[in-house]
Amino acid sequence: MPAAYEELIATVKDTALLRSTAAILGWDQRTKMPPGGVEHRSKQMAQLARMIHEKATASRIGELISACEADSELVSDPHSDSAANLRELRRSYDRSTKLPADLVEEMARTRSVAEHEWEQARAKSDFSLFAPWLSKNIDLSRRAAECYGWGPEDEAWDALAEGYEVGMRARDIEAVFSPLRDKLQALISDLQSAPRHPSTAIRTVKVAIDAQKSFVHRVAEAMGFDFQRGRIDTTVHPFCSGTSPGDVRITTRFAEGMFFEALMATMHEAGHGLYEQGLPTEHTGTPLGRAVSLGIHESQSRMWENFVGRSIHFWRWCQPIVAAEVGGDAGKLTADEVYEGLNIAEPDFIRVEADEATYNLHIMVRFELERSLMNGELTADDLPHEWNRRYKEYLGVDVPDDARGCLQDVHWSGGSFGYFPTYTLGNLYAAQIFEKVLEDIPDLYDSFEKGEFSPLKSWLNQNLHAHGSRYTPAELCERITGKPLSSEPLLRHLESKLRPLYRA
Amino acid sequence: MPAAYEELIATVKDTALLRSTAAILGWDQRTKMPPGGVEHRSKQMAQLARMIHEKATASRIGELISACEADSELVSDPHSDSAANLRELRRSYDRSTKLPADLVEEMARTRSVAEHEWEQARAKSDFSLFAPWLSKNIDLSRRAAECYGWGPEDEAWDALAEGYEVGMRARDIEAVFSPLRDKLQALISDLQSAPRHPSTAIRTVKVAIDAQKSFVHRVAEAMGFDFQRGRIDTTVHPFCSGTSPGDVRITTRFAEGMFFEALMATMHEAGHGLYEQGLPTEHTGTPLGRAVSLGIHESQSRMWENFVGRSIHFWRWCQPIVAAEVGGDAGKLTADEVYEGLNIAEPDFIRVEADEATYNLHIMVRFELERSLMNGELTADDLPHEWNRRYKEYLGVDVPDDARGCLQDVHWSGGSFGYFPTYTLGNLYAAQIFEKVLEDIPDLYDSFEKGEFSPLKSWLNQNLHAHGSRYTPAELCERITGKPLSSEPLLRHLESKLRPLYRA
Repeated sequence: MPAAYEELIATVKDTALLRSTAAILGWDQRTKMPPGGVEHRSKQMAQLARMIHEKATASRIGELISACEADSELVSDPHSDSAANLRELRRSYDRSTKLPADLVEEMARTRSVAEHEWEQARAKSDFSLFAPWLSKNIDLSRRAAECYGWGPEDEAWDALAEGYEVGMRARDIEAVFSPLRDKLQALISDLQSAPRHPSTAIRTVKVAIDAQKSFVHRVAEAMGFDFQRGRIDTTVHPFCSGTSPGDVRITTRFAEGMFFEALMATMHEAGHGLYEQGLPTEHTGTPLGRAVSLGIHESQSRMWENFVGRSIHFWRWCQPIVAAEVGGDAGKLTADEVYEGLNIAEPDFIRVEADEATYNLHIMVRFELERSLMNGELTADDLPHEWNRRYKEYLGVDVPDDARGCLQDVHWSGGSFGYFPTYTLGNLYAAQIFEKVLEDIPDLYDSFEKGEFSPLKSWLNQNLHAHGSRYTPAELCERITGKPLSSEPLLRHLESKLRPLYRA
Repeated sequence: MPAAYEELIATVKDTALLRSTAAILGWDQRTKMPPGGVEHRSKQMAQLARMIHEKATASRIGELISACEADSELVSDPHSDSAANLRELRRSYDRSTKLPADLVEEMARTRSVAEHEWEQARAKSDFSLFAPWLSKNIDLSRRAAECYGWGPEDEAWDALAEGYEVGMRARDIEAVFSPLRDKLQALISDLQSAPRHPSTAIRTVKVAIDAQKSFVHRVAEAMGFDFQRGRIDTTVHPFCSGTSPGDVRITTRFAEGMFFEALMATMHEAGHGLYEQGLPTEHTGTPLGRAVSLGIHESQSRMWENFVGRSIHFWRWCQPIVAAEVGGDAGKLTADEVYEGLNIAEPDFIRVEADEATYNLHIMVRFELERSLMNGELTADDLPHEWNRRYKEYLGVDVPDDARGCLQDVHWSGGSFGYFPTYTLGNLYAAQIFEKVLEDIPDLYDSFEKGEFSPLKSWLNQNLHAHGSRYTPAELCERITGKPLSSEPLLRHLESKLRPLYRA
């Protein structure tokens, strides 16, 4: 390899190494740190952020990338190690150097106040307290979008969304979301008026937290999550973090009356964790060793949560073990009762509590609103009205107040515009990829019924995890499934599961 | 404050902040990290060590220290904030810049192999495997001592010991250790032939690990260890770490048959922890906010372990709670039985298992040997013979093999010569300071019997912890007790406790 490329990779790995140190401090803060450590920890995090930013934006990196891009040996095959690394390094270097320092500082400062004000506003359910801060965040994000720039057929929202999902454009999202929205609305409406409703028996079950902990550990292990290279802890908001494929840390949450929910949350995070553990270790610290996007990451968590954990096949294996090892009321349920309880589709107004079908409508509301906010078609003050109007139209529900309406999510208070669609992209990718897995492994569901998950895990390791960021998300989707992203597989999945359950 | 001093303090705090990040990674590695994280973690630690070394040895620091030292306002009062900080910063800057880079590298490289070879040699109890590596470590440490330099009346060992205990000289240690050795030998010999031996009833007690965990937590809390600013975890080798007085982390270890030992280990580490929690937060990151030495640190752990935890007064409070909350065989013991069981003095050949009295003889053997190794009076090959000879002479025991002899400790394999005496210094300081506490608080033992430990904790906070490194260890000892360090208080403590127990 040419000297410039070697130097570039060494420099990039050095920065990634420091980033992984910040990741451990972040994990520690959320899982282990005593309350008295907060002030000192914020200083540690600020110091690391400053050092990482300096390293990532050093002009030497720009020079090295340019020198490598001029070397045809390195870039002629667009999917070679070097070309893929250079494509991604160019993208992130440009993004991190395009914002002027004073804008970055103003965003950070405003964000930290805005998050605080949002908490207050939500507690009082008073949007007017948050409106001026949302306005500031909108203004700053639009200025940032202008710094990033966008193509002649693109728009401001695209420039921001690119930071979460490479190549995601609002018009493409719209093209996939629109048919999905229409058909989901129809499906949900049919379910609402259906003659039969799934069993709600799981709702009354209580399980001691310790028993839940060891059970979710067992299921994560069965999925193939490697506890020699990972761990699981308890937090209020579950997440997945770590330093490298050898050290992947997931968290989950427990409540006595939420045993099955804790299991779903664990399978979700373990799905993220399997992706991280499956990345190629020889490329750690470079784009080739990194997950490709939030949307693809979410496809892994949703696949294990929804396509495995909410399938009747999984429960035919799992419920007898619940009966034997957890017992009590939980053990008295049948596999069908648990399966039904985990697949109740009911429009409501809180995103994070939404079921698999209605969830995507919550995302669409947010996508449309943030797109308009970035285009200048809506202002902060329009938000409550426009939010509530869409909830009525798409989900048929009356939002009772702003706390349970447009103040429910943290994202916009933190200046994250363009993030929400990655959740639904995750569902879409999961469905489309899972159809391909079923094609390749016809007896996949039989393996679930036997508690064998290594066929699915190995398939994902080989066809998805091993690629890191070699391909863009769209390329990866085409490469794996042979087709561009479509709403059809997700709709087929939901229709074929929910209509029989509701006899609709 | 002059600009040079402000800049110096800001720079020093920045380095200390990064050091505290390394501390968290070290804590994580020993308590939480999955085994698969080892390789990546060693890269993270190496990166941080490199960055910290660069920051700590930057020539700018030397310039700033010199500029400040020339400013009489800053240094005229030797115990002012600025003078104390400058004294300590000068010392550590000089030490960290005196060794040439190639020697530092050779030491690090040799050490990591030597530790590995030591493990092998110990496992096979074959000193000859380790001898060449010990030779190399001796040679490198002597070269390092020459770089540090020593005064006309000092010796090579002093130059190394200074790194662990400011101002510690071999001749001073000898002056304190010699009378201690003679009188301890006489005491132990009397106890050996005494007509009565303390109860060994605690040795058969078994307590479930979970019950032990919550009990040691309760006792640490009673001592005043603040769990809002600290935590306790489980490791094979207990230690105390953290980032700042707001985040202090201790660890302990458990075995079913070692309940009382786990409690003593916890009180020991909590003693360290109270020191760290008691340091002045306004000086975090500077010498004034740092513990003064290993010996003084050890005085805090030993005081809580031996002067509180091994006192009959403590057990008159504690044992009824054991009976009520732990129950079982542990609960059936009387306070006297536990007190006696924790005060059995028996010569043996393993340092870390030694009792309060014989422990110091183990240290003296090591001090004499490492002093001679550094002076060139002994070589590595002489070690087993000289070790075993001293164990026979001082402790009256026949060392069965090298694994349980001169291969038992990790220190020398890691190139740490001059460290061992800090353990006995801890015992000596603890005894001398504790006599002063008893003078100032005559009803101290009554408070122990009521489970009230805040009089002792507050006294230590005020008279010791709050000073950070404002005074040298010797100055601090004089300031607190009015006298230089002496062996008398420790001897009085051991004689007055052990002779009655043994009727000797």
